[in-house]
Amino acid sequence: MEEFSAGSALSALADRPGDGTITKEQLLLSGLAHSAPAVPLQLTRSTNITPGLRYRNLGKSGLRVSNIGLGTWPTFSPNVSEEQAEQIIVLAVESGINVFDLSEAHSGTRAEVELGRILSRRGWKRTSFIVTTKIYWSTRSEERGLSRKHIIESVKASLHRLQLSYIDVVIVHKADPMCPMEEVVRAINYVINQGWVMYWGTARWSPVEIMEAYTNCRQFNCVTPIVEQAEYHLFCREKTELYMPELYNKIGVGLMAWSPISMGLSQGKDDSSIQLFSRASFRNKYSSFSWTEDETAATNKEGYGWMKERIQPEESRRHSERIRELNGLAEKLGCSLTQLTIAWSLKNESVQCLLLGASNVEQLYENIQALQLIPKLNTNMVQDIEKILENKPSRPPMVSTLALR
Amino acid sequence: MEEFSAGSALSALADRPGDGTITKEQLLLSGLAHSAPAVPLQLTRSTNITPGLRYRNLGKSGLRVSNIGLGTWPTFSPNVSEEQAEQIIVLAVESGINVFDLSEAHSGTRAEVELGRILSRRGWKRTSFIVTTKIYWSTRSEERGLSRKHIIESVKASLHRLQLSYIDVVIVHKADPMCPMEEVVRAINYVINQGWVMYWGTARWSPVEIMEAYTNCRQFNCVTPIVEQAEYHLFCREKTELYMPELYNKIGVGLMAWSPISMGLSQGKDDSSIQLFSRASFRNKYSSFSWTEDETAATNKEGYGWMKERIQPEESRRHSERIRELNGLAEKLGCSLTQLTIAWSLKNESVQCLLLGASNVEQLYENIQALQLIPKLNTNMVQDIEKILENKPSRPPMVSTLALR
Amino acid sequence: MEEFSAGSALSALADRPGDGTITKEQLLLSGLAHSAPAVPLQLTRSTNITPGLRYRNLGKSGLRVSNIGLGTWPTFSPNVSEEQAEQIIVLAVESGINVFDLSEAHSGTRAEVELGRILSRRGWKRTSFIVTTKIYWSTRSEERGLSRKHIIESVKASLHRLQLSYIDVVIVHKADPMCPMEEVVRAINYVINQGWVMYWGTARWSPVEIMEAYTNCRQFNCVTPIVEQAEYHLFCREKTELYMPELYNKIGVGLMAWSPISMGLSQGKDDSSIQLFSRASFRNKYSSFSWTEDETAATNKEGYGWMKERIQPEESRRHSERIRELNGLAEKLGCSLTQLTIAWSLKNESVQCLLLGASNVEQLYENIQALQLIPKLNTNMVQDIEKILENKPSRPPMVSTLALR
Amino acid sequence: MEEFSAGSALSALADRPGDGTITKEQLLLSGLAHSAPAVPLQLTRSTNITPGLRYRNLGKSGLRVSNIGLGTWPTFSPNVSEEQAEQIIVLAVESGINVFDLSEAHSGTRAEVELGRILSRRGWKRTSFIVTTKIYWSTRSEERGLSRKHIIESVKASLHRLQLSYIDVVIVHKADPMCPMEEVVRAINYVINQGWVMYWGTARWSPVEIMEAYTNCRQFNCVTPIVEQAEYHLFCREKTELYMPELYNKIGVGLMAWSPISMGLSQGKDDSSIQLFSRASFRNKYSSFSWTEDETAATNKEGYGWMKERIQPEESRRHSERIRELNGLAEKLGCSLTQLTIAWSLKNESVQCLLLGASNVEQLYENIQALQLIPKLNTNMVQDIEKILENKPSRPPMVSTLALR
Repeated sequence: MEEFSAGSALSALADRPGDGTITKEQLLLSGLAHSAPAVPLQLTRSTNITPGLRYRNLGKSGLRVSNIGLGTWPTFSPNVSEEQAEQIIVLAVESGINVFDLSEAHSGTRAEVELGRILSRRGWKRTSFIVTTKIYWSTRSEERGLSRKHIIESVKASLHRLQLSYIDVVIVHKADPMCPMEEVVRAINYVINQGWVMYWGTARWSPVEIMEAYTNCRQFNCVTPIVEQAEYHLFCREKTELYMPELYNKIGVGLMAWSPISMGLSQGKDDSSIQLFSRASFRNKYSSFSWTEDETAATNKEGYGWMKERIQPEESRRHSERIRELNGLAEKLGCSLTQLTIAWSLKNESVQCLLLGASNVEQLYENIQALQLIPKLNTNMVQDIEKILENKPSRPPMVSTLALR
Repeated sequence: MEEFSAGSALSALADRPGDGTITKEQLLLSGLAHSAPAVPLQLTRSTNITPGLRYRNLGKSGLRVSNIGLGTWPTFSPNVSEEQAEQIIVLAVESGINVFDLSEAHSGTRAEVELGRILSRRGWKRTSFIVTTKIYWSTRSEERGLSRKHIIESVKASLHRLQLSYIDVVIVHKADPMCPMEEVVRAINYVINQGWVMYWGTARWSPVEIMEAYTNCRQFNCVTPIVEQAEYHLFCREKTELYMPELYNKIGVGLMAWSPISMGLSQGKDDSSIQLFSRASFRNKYSSFSWTEDETAATNKEGYGWMKERIQPEESRRHSERIRELNGLAEKLGCSLTQLTIAWSLKNESVQCLLLGASNVEQLYENIQALQLIPKLNTNMVQDIEKILENKPSRPPMVSTLALR
Repeated sequence: MEEFSAGSALSALADRPGDGTITKEQLLLSGLAHSAPAVPLQLTRSTNITPGLRYRNLGKSGLRVSNIGLGTWPTFSPNVSEEQAEQIIVLAVESGINVFDLSEAHSGTRAEVELGRILSRRGWKRTSFIVTTKIYWSTRSEERGLSRKHIIESVKASLHRLQLSYIDVVIVHKADPMCPMEEVVRAINYVINQGWVMYWGTARWSPVEIMEAYTNCRQFNCVTPIVEQAEYHLFCREKTELYMPELYNKIGVGLMAWSPISMGLSQGKDDSSIQLFSRASFRNKYSSFSWTEDETAATNKEGYGWMKERIQPEESRRHSERIRELNGLAEKLGCSLTQLTIAWSLKNESVQCLLLGASNVEQLYENIQALQLIPKLNTNMVQDIEKILENKPSRPPMVSTLALR
Repeated sequence: MEEFSAGSALSALADRPGDGTITKEQLLLSGLAHSAPAVPLQLTRSTNITPGLRYRNLGKSGLRVSNIGLGTWPTFSPNVSEEQAEQIIVLAVESGINVFDLSEAHSGTRAEVELGRILSRRGWKRTSFIVTTKIYWSTRSEERGLSRKHIIESVKASLHRLQLSYIDVVIVHKADPMCPMEEVVRAINYVINQGWVMYWGTARWSPVEIMEAYTNCRQFNCVTPIVEQAEYHLFCREKTELYMPELYNKIGVGLMAWSPISMGLSQGKDDSSIQLFSRASFRNKYSSFSWTEDETAATNKEGYGWMKERIQPEESRRHSERIRELNGLAEKLGCSLTQLTIAWSLKNESVQCLLLGASNVEQLYENIQALQLIPKLNTNMVQDIEKILENKPSRPPMVSTLALR
């Protein structure tokens, strides 16, 4: 992983303790410096069987997905050639990955076009892979809000670009508070009844919004959602750990997780990954449900300038220390911090599929190897990590309304 | 606006007080005379942003419409060339209008054919505009009543004429008391499930009929209507002000309003607009839900001869006076009476979209400028208008059935 | 009407009283003889407006049908040329008839092919006519019973033969006691949802079977039937008069009536029509719901030999007398007995559409004229007919189950 | 039947009593030896009417199936030429058989391709035959589990291979405990609503799983299953005799039965059929619901080696004796043991259709003749068989939960 290994030149900085005036970049680079010694796992390639790769039912549906999927956002980015992108897809397929996730919010519509071309060229059996794509809307574009018109048009356009007769899972990106949930679930049911879509899910919806969708599906006899796509990593834990198990148990909504680290977003920008990685830690613990696409869009255009706002010196110092300690653990395990982070996320049984992203074959290969780390994360190791993180989420106690009188 | 500015030659008449024998035309012309001094707003054209243009959800649906739409009845009329019509459509689009309303009752099927040709020629993205058209039936034609057969045939024919794969909102024009509501909502649901239609609404339905449709939709799990199209202006207020807010709050049915004035129906006939405009004032206040298409059809063929029946002298005089006072207000605001009327209608939050009509580009441009008047209609101004109109609708008190014993 | 006017040569027979040994044919011929003097109404043809022709909603649906329809069974029979058939169809259309009823049980599949060709050749607007056809099944054919498979295959085959994109009303001919009603209503709902059929109805179903279908439609949210096709004439009254009004009021199922007389079945066989006409009178009053297609098929092949079984002499005499008296009434009204019978059936408001059949243009024309008789059937006249028939149906009294203890 | 008639050379073996060390093959061959004298029924071929062939409604559906159907697994096997296969199909059709059952689990996808070609070549009316095929899934293939994706893909692929526009009955082979029943019934309902499938059923589902499917269909307003395909023969009786009558009466699910004997699986391998035939007798009486496709697949590849495991000597001796006694009965009736077994299965009214298999025309012809045996299986004969079998299934008594306290 470049973002860790390329950091050695900057290690001097890392030794400087936080003094309250240090910039956020410097602080984060200090974390980066510590990650340098870690040597990523480099196992021999075995294209047939990837140790640790499993197939699981996504949510309580019958659809069986590999526990790691390919998040194609970094793959179909401007600085990756179509040939390279194809190699990444091929490696994923050969490793047993059957999920390809597309995200209009991040990579625009080009990803669908390119993935469609690769799938068509390779001629893989349609039954052997699963394509998930988004219904994306923004207040700025002419597709204002999550209307029936937009949902239907969006699915038709995706099918056209992908050259497929159906999408496996369509993910509704962001709920629209102005659009009645009945309209959304009926429109989704329509595209499913047309045979254009097999399943549906959500991304960046709150648990209450997901429950509301479920209730509306039950009321109008529509197909219920099977998955929420959410950010999950060492520093962003509440939604996945506190709320998703309940949603899974009660209404069968599973979890497809991703994180800036698992997506390999730092490719070629040495420091950015750790910035992204640690950023959530500076936020209020209970509000950080997700990392928004507006911010990633900003990142794509403007770099990480928006992160330069000053943070509290004490907080900075603590964060820097945690990164250093995690790096120590990774070193002991003989892996990179990225691999440790991926394995730690996969260890959580709520995560039915973790999206990995890559902008080159090597990066994907290294990240896949993280699967082999999972058995090494035993109880002691997990406890050690918790001790370092000190962010195990817990629900605020339910206060009896009686007591409030 | 020609109907006002051309009236000066007739101003002598206006000074003559009503004497009981004066004809309706004369009376109305007196109003026209007073409107002459008003200078319509002529702001510089800015094609990108029209100040005051907003997008709102239509009813409680996710469909976002511009607060003004184009009612195409006057645009696709015999005395407007196809080239002129196209220019009007283009101005609407450039002004940010995304709603085009078609009305078979008024302009026949030709409007659909011409609009379809323009849309196809211009190649605008299907996601960027909204076409609303009517299911129209009459006791005289062979399409007798609002049967499933007629609804389906009507939608198929509209799609064919428009060269579109779907209609955004299909409006059922008039309820058919002889046809069960279940049949109507099932047939509408069918055309929606076929993908031919996205949403549906009603025109000239009573609140009770709309509630009945809603109840049937709920009973048979069909898609509920999102909009009623109704007449609304200074002299036709009850339905919009008394009943539509309740329908919106309870069942999510919004309002698309129109009026003879906003439709610019007087083009080239100096006096007719004011006739239409004021006509409602001579009716019983509580019965004037709408201005019927039979009457407009009669208008198209026979001019306004049907209006020549005598009216009460006292009423005539009062009406004439009101028009004069409103003109005074408009003058103060630096706009035409038509613009004042449009702005006043848009000021009502129940009106999610007001249809403007035009038979030439200038007329549409002038009417659009009325958007900029809205902020000027402050509380005082609105009170002044109420004082002039003296027609603020109120519901008759609900008499307890107990009290009636 | 040939069956009446050609009978004069046989009038001698008619004077002979029934003696217990007289054959059924002789008996019926006596009725025929009496009808000879009646001169059928021969009004000048006015192709535009047929006096008395009305459009009514079929059942409680929105579909508006002419009060007389064309039952095409005799039209598409082997001894009518395609050219003659087309002339009959054209006369029907010009007279304002908009219903064409096809019956596989009687005329096989050829009728659909020929009607399809005529409709296509004439190019009438699809909105202007209504085609009703049957789903027919027999225990003898390979289409055994009323399965989903058979219903779907049958509708597809009819559409293909008719060259139409949809059938207006599909009539399920005979209920299948072996097939669950749920399967029938779901299959019908399927063909409606496919757009292949607009409405559905039944033929020769008992009131209980119709209620069962309705209940199943309600349970499974399927489209309910709108019409029962039943035999109705002077001598077959119970179903129509006792049960259909209740079905109409409670569940909106209307009535499309037919009778051997109205179908003009006697064409070219002087005596057969009256045989058919009067046959029902010899049956048990409460069991004669309908005249079965097995019998008509037998008639087509074997003539009326099956009718030659002896009947009770007293009954024969009474029947003969009634025919004579009815002929007397017809004579007074200046019409044929057939016309009287048609007018009498149409007088019943439960009959929304009466099917007329014809094997030539003149026959149809004469029968249509019966519409003008309806106003002449005033209260006195109706009472006179009742006195002659003595068969006004009444329900057996409902015995209280309490009383039975 | 080869498996019986070719056995004479081995008759010496048969006289040797079981001694506890005899192999299973030897044991079974002893049964075979006894069957040698029996002469199979060889009636003159009458292609039009097969005595005893009846049409019955499958479950409580309207679909009428012949009481014997063709299980095509042995027909489309590698050692039968396409020409021979076609002759078998033709004989079936000429005998009045209208059911053709396909089984991907056993013969792979080739059977669909070949049957499709034959049906297309012969040009039989689509209404005259019924094709049933399976939705098959295995944990080993990439079609993991019974997902919506797999059900839809599977049906589409079958239609393509069969060159048909619809499958009459799609059979879901094995329930998937990991897939929610709601997803299964909704996906099945989808393929029915697409017109690709007319009916659906199950194979190898437990009664509880069938009830669960039914309950889900009722909850989500989906089409209910009409048939379970189950193994049924002299030595495998519980499911059919104890549970299927209740499922039929309560939820209308009928039975399509098959057995290794009726499928003629021993073609060319003298002893295997009896092995299969008797195998169930060595199992625990209440667990032998069905004979799994994994075992038949093993059989196809490896022969019956898996059966060579030793069994208890006493049990072997008893089984050998029973086969001998049944052969005696068959001899008395003048038929083969296979024919007796077929007739005995058909005698059970729960069996609406018994699948016969054949790898050549003679074999099928002989098995069909078993229909004529049914009337000979009178009460005495049935009692004699019961006495021999001693395996009449009975439900364990329901123990009151109260009594258990």
